[in-house]
Amino acid sequence: MTEETKMSQALVVLSGGQDSTTCLYWALDRFGAGQVEAVTFDYGQRHRIELDCAARIAAQAGTPQTVLPIDTFAVLGGNALTESGIAVQAGVDAQTRLPNTFVPGRNLIFLTFAAALAYQRGFRNVVTGVTQTDYSGYPDCRQAAIQALEQTLRLGMEYAITIHTPLMFKSKADTVRLARVLGALPALADTHTCYNGVQPPCGECPACRLRAQGFAEAGIIDPLIERFQHPAAPYS
Amino acid sequence: MTEETKMSQALVVLSGGQDSTTCLYWALDRFGAGQVEAVTFDYGQRHRIELDCAARIAAQAGTPQTVLPIDTFAVLGGNALTESGIAVQAGVDAQTRLPNTFVPGRNLIFLTFAAALAYQRGFRNVVTGVTQTDYSGYPDCRQAAIQALEQTLRLGMEYAITIHTPLMFKSKADTVRLARVLGALPALADTHTCYNGVQPPCGECPACRLRAQGFAEAGIIDPLIERFQHPAAPYS
Repeated sequence: MTEETKMSQALVVLSGGQDSTTCLYWALDRFGAGQVEAVTFDYGQRHRIELDCAARIAAQAGTPQTVLPIDTFAVLGGNALTESGIAVQAGVDAQTRLPNTFVPGRNLIFLTFAAALAYQRGFRNVVTGVTQTDYSGYPDCRQAAIQALEQTLRLGMEYAITIHTPLMFKSKADTVRLARVLGALPALADTHTCYNGVQPPCGECPACRLRAQGFAEAGIIDPLIERFQHPAAPYS
Repeated sequence: MTEETKMSQALVVLSGGQDSTTCLYWALDRFGAGQVEAVTFDYGQRHRIELDCAARIAAQAGTPQTVLPIDTFAVLGGNALTESGIAVQAGVDAQTRLPNTFVPGRNLIFLTFAAALAYQRGFRNVVTGVTQTDYSGYPDCRQAAIQALEQTLRLGMEYAITIHTPLMFKSKADTVRLARVLGALPALADTHTCYNGVQPPCGECPACRLRAQGFAEAGIIDPLIERFQHPAAPYS
């Protein structure tokens, strides 16, 4: 593989959700199959089912996938840290009894680790499904933060790397339309969105509702719903 | 504690080495005892003795210390990743049989986790002993990268945080002189520098030599050496 070819290789941050799966297909379209790999973070997420989804999606796309562990969030997210005490334990949400792994700037960590892996691979591109139009509202998903991070990574790794955010300004409906154009709809049948971590999805939680709204606005049937309603006739 | 007081609190990244220990005393001087905490990363470093040193230094300074685990570097640093294979194991250096935890941009990760902890504490300041004058030559220790990271963290966490780098342009000799001014010399007796991970330090490895050169240029006796030569008369 020549250096020039490697310039066109991309690493996709693949969570197993709808947006990152669409980005995987965007990258396959843009860089070509065989030029794309995926990285998935095993960070103690609430629903392990996301990891299963990501693995299945990568396998079906024929994309090599690396799973990287991050044990830091479960500790950092712990309520112990909000007090001045020193004893640190893996944090557990008082209500759900599940690890609370949300940490401010978490996405910056994901992308920095992804960039480090890209560096080691000799890849010059990282692709992420972050978006500033939609519900999440996390400041580290916004365009300005991603651009600043890209600059930081270029300086901090002395390496010309580009962070691609194909969904940055897209609505959920536009993302669904993009998935159709890219031939990613069948793969969306394997994605996970539901906050309650169940399959078939609960249909009631905010994440399920937002997903349903996006498909409805796009006038496209959600292959994940279709899969459970008509298991004998898989979406294709 | 009022919001205004918290603006003047600082989190020091404490590795157990000479530079970060000097920075701890710089922070105690600048922000005041009781306004400073330390964070130490347990990331699979070559010499666990560094963690013991950091704990002892923090305790002696009366500084609360949080130890955060990061299991990602040992995997990312693995030689397995240099090939295109997918099987990922904790990397072991072929020569030393020790984990190879060096990853490009590693310092960006440390500082982002430190900033996340500072955020949770309500602290507005992070202090790190990185320097661009000295031997390390890591691009993520340089002024431009740190400034870009500070901007990234401010945008990505929507939080006004400042990264202080009191040693950025100091030579080793200047750092030793600063340690003396700050009353940090006794604490330097507990720091770890030797690449071979032994105590007393080997005196032969590049790290030991560089340290010795700094003390020699400053005309100050290294309290770590003094401690092993005259154990009955501790440095004070």
